Amino acid sequence: MKVNNIDGNNSSKNYRTIWMEGTCVFMIEQNLLPFEFKIYKSENYKQTCHAIKTMIVRGAGAIGAAAGFAMAQASTEASDNEYIRGIQIAKTEIEATRPTARNLFTATERVFNAALISKAKAVNEAQNIADEDAQNSLLIGEYGNELIKNGFRIETHCNAGWLAFVDYGTALSPIYLAHKQGKEVFIYVDETRPRNQGAKLTAWELQNENIPYAIIADNAGAHLMSKGKIDMIITGADRIAANGDVANKIGTLEKAIAAKYYNIPFYVAAPKSTFDLDCRTGDEIIIEERDEDEILYQIGLNENHKTEKILISAPNSKAINPAFDVTPADLITGIFTERGIIKPKKQEINKIFNIE
Amino acid sequence: MKVNNIDGNNSSKNYRTIWMEGTCVFMIEQNLLPFEFKIYKSENYKQTCHAIKTMIVRGAGAIGAAAGFAMAQASTEASDNEYIRGIQIAKTEIEATRPTARNLFTATERVFNAALISKAKAVNEAQNIADEDAQNSLLIGEYGNELIKNGFRIETHCNAGWLAFVDYGTALSPIYLAHKQGKEVFIYVDETRPRNQGAKLTAWELQNENIPYAIIADNAGAHLMSKGKIDMIITGADRIAANGDVANKIGTLEKAIAAKYYNIPFYVAAPKSTFDLDCRTGDEIIIEERDEDEILYQIGLNENHKTEKILISAPNSKAINPAFDVTPADLITGIFTERGIIKPKKQEINKIFNIE
Repeated sequence: MKVNNIDGNNSSKNYRTIWMEGTCVFMIEQNLLPFEFKIYKSENYKQTCHAIKTMIVRGAGAIGAAAGFAMAQASTEASDNEYIRGIQIAKTEIEATRPTARNLFTATERVFNAALISKAKAVNEAQNIADEDAQNSLLIGEYGNELIKNGFRIETHCNAGWLAFVDYGTALSPIYLAHKQGKEVFIYVDETRPRNQGAKLTAWELQNENIPYAIIADNAGAHLMSKGKIDMIITGADRIAANGDVANKIGTLEKAIAAKYYNIPFYVAAPKSTFDLDCRTGDEIIIEERDEDEILYQIGLNENHKTEKILISAPNSKAINPAFDVTPADLITGIFTERGIIKPKKQEINKIFNIE
Repeated sequence: MKVNNIDGNNSSKNYRTIWMEGTCVFMIEQNLLPFEFKIYKSENYKQTCHAIKTMIVRGAGAIGAAAGFAMAQASTEASDNEYIRGIQIAKTEIEATRPTARNLFTATERVFNAALISKAKAVNEAQNIADEDAQNSLLIGEYGNELIKNGFRIETHCNAGWLAFVDYGTALSPIYLAHKQGKEVFIYVDETRPRNQGAKLTAWELQNENIPYAIIADNAGAHLMSKGKIDMIITGADRIAANGDVANKIGTLEKAIAAKYYNIPFYVAAPKSTFDLDCRTGDEIIIEERDEDEILYQIGLNENHKTEKILISAPNSKAINPAFDVTPADLITGIFTERGIIKPKKQEINKIFNIE
């Protein structure tokens, strides 16, 4: 997708979040966004591991692509006499960078198997993984876009845009396509406390695409719905259970309940790789509790354009910081996938996995 | 209520938010909380006006008391030969400090009428206003406390504690009483973006009373409800319409909808002065839109213990910042008032105003 104002001038340029050129992997330094736009160049698989670990690259799809590219780099770097051992060691190392990221393991497995045939096949397979991720996002956009009418005002939560994938994104992909086709859309961006990925990343993405938007406090959603100002809600997903329950960023559940109350369609956008069919219902999903400092402090840019962390609560307070919540399937109008829009029901989910 | 750790030592002391001694008015400098505890001394009515205008004193009840005291100061200060004219000018000036605060006008009116009789009567009436405010809060606490069971986990939004009134507060008053009686309670404090009055003021109040609490992101409410972790929600109110619809800090509506979805009792605590019987329903209440900077920036304490404002969103973003929302009466379990707990229904509201 487009990034404006590169190098301080008015030019804009298209980027993927991550790509490979020769034996180097390039990626947008997401930990610097939205205040600085920089490309990180990784010259070997160990540097790519570092990038995954330190969240220079983040988001399910982008991490998967990074892991695939890292595995391809490892294959290229491995000496011929100890080749198998070399790529095995690298695989273990790559998989240890973000052990809870499912896409990462799928990617290393695929590229490792290709690397067993040849170095060229490994690079090719890593490229396929990145391309498929972008392609799936594009398809999600095409299906979702069919439901977006001219003039729609859409609320979104957190960041499920192209930064979390290789390109296009999930929740934002239909919006990009609608805008490209000339439909007028207006986006209400939940700031998404505590980490503000909405205000920071989603807003940055929309601005680069010149799509009109306004950031709102997470508290304002139901109010806007009550005033008839929201036509549709689209969010991403971190994990979708076999029955259609959706785990996503904390606050998603609250929007879904309010949307149901006001009869506003609530959609989730996610590729097949987000579904976990071994997980029967959302009750089985364990919710990660993150550091209380994310609530008690806030990070941003001070007057001198330096990143600063400030205390925004009464000193010596405790906080509780669940990172995700589970939205029950019956609050979800539909799920945009690369195989079409489905109802959050076991049978429809099975169908996209070709399970009878 | 109690303030701990005065002057950096371990002593604690009881305070009202505002009080009068001789011809001086003293008040907690609320604009410095929770990072600094200081008392502002106002030596004349003009200084008290300044304190109201600059939000050294804030909150419906506290503003009412401040206005009453200011009027009493004006009466004391007025020269005998131009007495009526003097107190009339002062009244106009006091009423211009926060023209949307209803309590302010009630207070100036009452003290002005007393001042027409004598200076002593004026001071006495101002004191009555402050005492009545504290007394009403205490009664609200007594009624609300009857519903709090031992072990209750209560969520509250924004700050409807003693800082907003003269003493005790509204939403927090029942909690203080429950704690005093030895009931175990745990409070989930919504941080209440954008101005974080929950994280800043409610947390500060609870800490001073040694009541266990945790600050949560506004996004986390429904999640905690879904896990059975909330037994009751209590919020304050900015205005209550004749039909029981409640205008309160943005985000209140979302909590009420989620509470209904999970069958959790949702209570509003407010004195009679919050009711506006001329306002038929919540639809008639105009929602103030505040400065977008409240969303785009955050104010807090930096590493050097200085107050700092940092940018927490993508540069050049727009934000929309409705300050309040309206919770329809049918989402509200009951209202704690100084006349008892009532249902949010016209007949029950009329009863506490002795209207047949």
